[in-house]
Amino acid sequence: MSRITIVGGGLVGSLLAIFLAKRGHKVNVYERRGDPRRTDVYAGRSINLVVSHRGWTALRAAGVEEAVKAITVPVHARMMHDREGNLNRVPYSIDNRAIHSVSRGELNRRLLTEAEKLPNVKVHFDHRCVDVDLQTATCHFQREEGDHVVVEADVVFGSDGAFSAVRSKMMLGRFSYSQEYIEHDYKEVAFPANPDGTPKMDPQCLHIWPRRWFMMMGLANQDGGFTGTLFMPHAATKDSPGFDTVRTEAEVTAFFKAHFADAMPIVPDIVDQYLRNPQSNLVIIRCAPWQVNGKVALIGDAAHAIVPFYGEGMNAGYEDCKVLNDLLDAHGDDNWAEVMHRYASVRKPNGDAIADLSMRNFVEMRDLVADPQFLLRRKIEGHLQARHPDKWLPLYSQVKFTDIAYKDAWEEGLRHDRIMEEVMRLPGIEEKWESAEVEKKALGLLG
Amino acid sequence: MSRITIVGGGLVGSLLAIFLAKRGHKVNVYERRGDPRRTDVYAGRSINLVVSHRGWTALRAAGVEEAVKAITVPVHARMMHDREGNLNRVPYSIDNRAIHSVSRGELNRRLLTEAEKLPNVKVHFDHRCVDVDLQTATCHFQREEGDHVVVEADVVFGSDGAFSAVRSKMMLGRFSYSQEYIEHDYKEVAFPANPDGTPKMDPQCLHIWPRRWFMMMGLANQDGGFTGTLFMPHAATKDSPGFDTVRTEAEVTAFFKAHFADAMPIVPDIVDQYLRNPQSNLVIIRCAPWQVNGKVALIGDAAHAIVPFYGEGMNAGYEDCKVLNDLLDAHGDDNWAEVMHRYASVRKPNGDAIADLSMRNFVEMRDLVADPQFLLRRKIEGHLQARHPDKWLPLYSQVKFTDIAYKDAWEEGLRHDRIMEEVMRLPGIEEKWESAEVEKKALGLLG
Repeated sequence: MSRITIVGGGLVGSLLAIFLAKRGHKVNVYERRGDPRRTDVYAGRSINLVVSHRGWTALRAAGVEEAVKAITVPVHARMMHDREGNLNRVPYSIDNRAIHSVSRGELNRRLLTEAEKLPNVKVHFDHRCVDVDLQTATCHFQREEGDHVVVEADVVFGSDGAFSAVRSKMMLGRFSYSQEYIEHDYKEVAFPANPDGTPKMDPQCLHIWPRRWFMMMGLANQDGGFTGTLFMPHAATKDSPGFDTVRTEAEVTAFFKAHFADAMPIVPDIVDQYLRNPQSNLVIIRCAPWQVNGKVALIGDAAHAIVPFYGEGMNAGYEDCKVLNDLLDAHGDDNWAEVMHRYASVRKPNGDAIADLSMRNFVEMRDLVADPQFLLRRKIEGHLQARHPDKWLPLYSQVKFTDIAYKDAWEEGLRHDRIMEEVMRLPGIEEKWESAEVEKKALGLLG
Repeated sequence: MSRITIVGGGLVGSLLAIFLAKRGHKVNVYERRGDPRRTDVYAGRSINLVVSHRGWTALRAAGVEEAVKAITVPVHARMMHDREGNLNRVPYSIDNRAIHSVSRGELNRRLLTEAEKLPNVKVHFDHRCVDVDLQTATCHFQREEGDHVVVEADVVFGSDGAFSAVRSKMMLGRFSYSQEYIEHDYKEVAFPANPDGTPKMDPQCLHIWPRRWFMMMGLANQDGGFTGTLFMPHAATKDSPGFDTVRTEAEVTAFFKAHFADAMPIVPDIVDQYLRNPQSNLVIIRCAPWQVNGKVALIGDAAHAIVPFYGEGMNAGYEDCKVLNDLLDAHGDDNWAEVMHRYASVRKPNGDAIADLSMRNFVEMRDLVADPQFLLRRKIEGHLQARHPDKWLPLYSQVKFTDIAYKDAWEEGLRHDRIMEEVMRLPGIEEKWESAEVEKKALGLLG
């Protein structure tokens, strides 16, 4: 039995607490903010999340799959909205598999309640981490009312998000770190339900308004509404408007009329919301090593903050927890130096891979899904997969519907790219994409 | 006339103060440490520096070339020491050009004195920057005796080094940043002069003991001694010993006997020094943007900390100052938003280039200079340069003996690599390297 401090009681910290407490450890979770079951700490600041296969794998291993399933909405397809309001539904897989939309706040509240059911978990809110001793695993917390709390432990996990306080302490030593802001910022827009509570769009689709350099997306909530998010360059370019050129009421109205006309009747106050809601930015954070001294480790966004375009940020964090749990199974609960070392070595390349994959999916969502050539490629890949499920699994499916390591998926995806580039160059591919010739070509290149 | 705050009174801050004061601005420099003319703030913690052509260009433009020249030692060549103690002298250029070795502390003291000769410069020591308001260019400093000093200004320059406090404030906004520790750490070793004050090795050479994965180097001081620096992986690898495996007196003695036998009689206490002196690490820092709001800008290591293997860190910072001064000439002294924007745009790609060049030169120094093929390539390049000085200027000369932008030098250097790779593959190149055939081949590829 180890005494474990978890800094950060968000999505990953709360699941990690459940994993570790069920192993018999004494777990204390310290969260900077208040209890989200008492105050709405997330109001209007969060993109909706999706749970994918690897998220479920971790939730199941922690014994909380059913508790979470109850608050999710399945999503089976992308629904593309073009400028004229035409819809095009593209399933995520050939076998109707689903990812599951969930509200961040609701999921966090549910997991905290699950964690607190365990007698050896205690969650402390309103504790801001101000220092960590990396040699002794001692943490210092500041409370708003002025108390300074010192907590000794055997090991510390920093699950305190993209701007991790634990990590900032690790940065003072030999620690490689990068933060990279992408050009695009985002704003949320709430899509209301009909007066009778039914949804105004198909709730089992992720709705996308791809506009090449910018885009809007919408994910269903359980109340029949959608959380919409507009992604756009923070500064206009020669190709694209930016948040800095869409500012006045007239500019915003013209902008939505030009690009998102079909959303305006669904969200009558869309212009007001745009003018009122905050503009947030998106950062990619990479660092190494993820642990020091076998005493202090980073997990989730604290180790690998990524952009939200694959919907994998949370799932990657949950997989971190699952892998850690597996390593404790394999190497014992009193062998933290070994377990932390292996955890960091195994997970770091996967954190890098999902960071790259997420940027790639942004290009796909805002641009490629509106490209007939890309849609044809997707159809060919679906056809290959249907005929040879053992040989061809599209990248998206590898990421969202399997536990294949992100790094391996990424490498296989790049290989698919090279093959499909050649396949798409076959003369008359538009007509013969279902032919034996195309199939033979692709499988031949696969080797 | 603007009120200018310079945070950091080191090598770059003190030169920048001179540049800006000579333009008529009111300059206040705030330095965290004490006055280096009163206490030895650098004791045993600094690699010796070299002033290269672009450093001199800046010093001349600031009117302090002569003041600095007096404290430098010219260095014309590399002197390689092999394991058997054999020496091989390789000039830096075909025309006996020199770089100039200088002690960091002495240079800093000299420049501070030059700065303080100007009536509109005031240097404040023992002022630690704790906050910067990026909107108003207001800085907050903490003094050791407890005073908190608030300084208003029109613009702020952060010349406060690799761990810049000004930059840490900029990092809270949309700011891309990376810090990358290289595998190698270093330790200094002091090489004494002879009892009569004469040097024990040729002082006009940079001495290198290249050992492929690790190396020692030595640069002359004015007192006849040398500052030696051992660079070695912080953790041993399958190819190389590391600081973690060379720890006991027996291990250290065996290590120097095996690899640096010829240095042992020159530095009788080399083992003691190794055991006593601190081990330091090396970090590469990149960031963007280098300025915000036309109010606050980074300069020198604060903007681009690099590894020391090209001896260009200080020179790059001095070139920053010179470029800024030129931009003030071109755009006026009351047009800071324009000047800072241009400064950041022009210098950032060059900061990235010299970071890459410096890592490249590390491989060259520790490994390639002991490789006969590499030395032959250098000879061929020197021959080409002698015959066609208008067409072929080796990369090293571009970096150290011209003001060619680092970025352009880097690109030209990569082009030379591709050409020389083909030239070195010519059959019998060892014999015919001075032939017309080789010359024609190289120039033909140059196009």
